Amino acid sequence: MDLKIELTKRADIFNKELENYLRDGRPQALYDAARHLPMGGGKRLRPCISMLSCEAVLGDAKKVMPLTIALELVHNFTLVHDDIMDKSHLRRNLPTVHVKFGEPTAIMAGDLLFAKAFEAMNNISSDFSVFKELNLSLVKCVEEICEGQQLDMGFEKRTNVTEKEYLEMIQKKTAVLFMLAAEGGGIVGGGSRTEVKSLKEYGRCLGLSFQIWDDYLDMSSTQETLGKDIGNDIRNGKKTLIAVHSLNNAVGDDKKILNEIFGNQNASEQDVKKVFNLFRKTKSVDYAKNTALKYNADAKKALDALGNSDAKQILIELADYSIKREK
Amino acid sequence: MDLKIELTKRADIFNKELENYLRDGRPQALYDAARHLPMGGGKRLRPCISMLSCEAVLGDAKKVMPLTIALELVHNFTLVHDDIMDKSHLRRNLPTVHVKFGEPTAIMAGDLLFAKAFEAMNNISSDFSVFKELNLSLVKCVEEICEGQQLDMGFEKRTNVTEKEYLEMIQKKTAVLFMLAAEGGGIVGGGSRTEVKSLKEYGRCLGLSFQIWDDYLDMSSTQETLGKDIGNDIRNGKKTLIAVHSLNNAVGDDKKILNEIFGNQNASEQDVKKVFNLFRKTKSVDYAKNTALKYNADAKKALDALGNSDAKQILIELADYSIKREK
Repeated sequence: MDLKIELTKRADIFNKELENYLRDGRPQALYDAARHLPMGGGKRLRPCISMLSCEAVLGDAKKVMPLTIALELVHNFTLVHDDIMDKSHLRRNLPTVHVKFGEPTAIMAGDLLFAKAFEAMNNISSDFSVFKELNLSLVKCVEEICEGQQLDMGFEKRTNVTEKEYLEMIQKKTAVLFMLAAEGGGIVGGGSRTEVKSLKEYGRCLGLSFQIWDDYLDMSSTQETLGKDIGNDIRNGKKTLIAVHSLNNAVGDDKKILNEIFGNQNASEQDVKKVFNLFRKTKSVDYAKNTALKYNADAKKALDALGNSDAKQILIELADYSIKREK
Repeated sequence: MDLKIELTKRADIFNKELENYLRDGRPQALYDAARHLPMGGGKRLRPCISMLSCEAVLGDAKKVMPLTIALELVHNFTLVHDDIMDKSHLRRNLPTVHVKFGEPTAIMAGDLLFAKAFEAMNNISSDFSVFKELNLSLVKCVEEICEGQQLDMGFEKRTNVTEKEYLEMIQKKTAVLFMLAAEGGGIVGGGSRTEVKSLKEYGRCLGLSFQIWDDYLDMSSTQETLGKDIGNDIRNGKKTLIAVHSLNNAVGDDKKILNEIFGNQNASEQDVKKVFNLFRKTKSVDYAKNTALKYNADAKKALDALGNSDAKQILIELADYSIKREK
C-alpha cells in the first residue's frame, strides 16, 4: 500500500467532482475569484478523510461526495477571508484572492463559496434526519471556525493563555472540519454509532496533531535559519502551544524577559533570538512535539473500534505521515 | 386598518424571536459584533412580508418564524460585508460593524450571521421536500446577492449599461430576499401553487419598486440641496436607473458631456451640477419615478390571485406606502 498513490487516487476523483460542480458563472470576475483558490490545488485532505471514513465502514464513497465538496469549499472560503484579515499575499504559491481580484470581490467570493458549500449539501442524503444532522453539523463547524479565529486574535493580546484555552482554539479553528469529514463519512457510509464516534475522535485528534505539528515545525529551525515568519509570530504574540507552554513554565528573569519581548512589535532581532532560546530552555519545543505525537497516537487508537480494511490502514498511515512531514 | 400599527405588531413579535435566537456567545467580541447591526433595529420589512404572506394564505405566521430570522440575518450579513467593501461609516445612525469592531472581526461577524441564518432554517418544516426547497432557495438568494453586488461594482466602470442589465442587477441585489420572504410565507402557510407564485411576484415587483424609488428619492432633491452622496454617486459612475436612462437617451453634446463627467473621480462641483441637470433634461428622473410606480402597481395586481384578508390588505397598503416614503 502506497499512501501517496491512495490519496492521489481519491483526490483525483474529488477534483473531477469539484471541477464539475464549481463551474464558471456570471459575473465572470466573481466566479474567477471564487474558483481561484479551490481550483488552485491543495492536498484535499478533508475530502480524502471523508471518503476513507466512508470506505472504512464499508460504505460507498460516491455517496459522500456532496459532503466532501462542502467541506473543501468551507475550508477554502475561510482561507479567502483569513487571508484578507491577515493581509497575506501568497497562498499555495499563488497570489491570494484579494491581492489578485481586490478586497471587495474577495469578500464576496468567500461568501459565494460559503453558499456553494450549502448548495452542495443538498444531495447528501435522501433520509431527512441524516440530511438535517449533517447540514446542521456543517453550520456549527462554520460557527466554531469563526469563534476559533476570533479566539486566536484575542489571545495575541494576552500573556496568560492556558493550554486548555489553546486546545479549545485549535479544535475550533482547525480540528472541526477534520471531525466532520471523518464523522460524516462514517454516517453516510452507514457505520454503527460506535464506529461513527470513533471516526469523529480520529478526526479530532488528527486535526489537533496536525496543528501542533505545524507549530512545532515552525520552531524546529535552528537559530541560524530563523525565518521571518517566526520573528513576526513572536512580535505579534502569536499563541502557539510552544509559546503557551513557555509563558506558563518560565520562572524568574526568564519569565520577565518573555513577558517583555513576546508580543512586542518593536522587538529587535536580538530580542527575537532571546525568546527563541527561552522556548528551548523551558523545553517547550519538545513539549509541543510530544503533544503532537500523543494526539497522533490517540487518533490511531480511536480506529481500533473499526474492523480491518484497506481504508482503515490508509487512515493510519495518513496519521503516521502527518508527523513525519516537514511542511 | 393602520399600516404602522400592523407592521409594528409583527416587528415586535419578530424582535422577541430574534432576541431569543441571537444570544450572547463566546468569544464576546465576535458575538457583540454579530449582534450589533441586527439588534440595532431596522424596519424588519422582510420578516413582516413573510408573516403577512403566510397569513394571506390563511397559514399560521408562527410557523414561518425560522424563515423570517434567516432572511433578516442574511440581509444583515450582506450589509456588514457591504459596509466593509464600501468603507461606510454609518448605518441606521450607528457606527458600522467594521468601524466599531475592526475589519477582521467584522468579516467574521458577517460569516457568523450567515451561518446562524442557516442554523435558524433547521426548524422551518417537518416536510423534507419543503425543507429542502426553502433551504436551497435561501442558498440561491445569497448567491444572487453576491452576483448582484459584483454586477453593481462592474457597472461603475461601464457607460453602456442597458435597462435590462440594471433590472437584473437590482433583482439579484435587492429583490430576491423580498421574493423569498413572500414566496416562503406562502409555502409554509400552505398556499396553492397559484397563490405562492403570485406572492413571489408581489415580492419581486415590490423589491424592484423599492430600489428604484430609492434611486428616485436620491435624485429628487433640488440643485440647491444637492447632497454629498449624489456627488459621490456621479463621480463613481453609479448606475441607478436614472443614470442608465440618461446615458442611453442623451444625444449630441449632452451625451458627450455625460460620458466625460459621469464616473470621473475628479469632476468638480460644477460638473456634478451639469450631470444633475442633464438627468432632468433627458426626463430620466421622471422615468425612474414612473417605473417605480409601474412595478408598484404590478406588485398589487399580483395579489389579485389571493382571496381577501386583512393580511392581503396590509400587503397592498405596504406597497402604497413604499412609493410615498421620503426615506
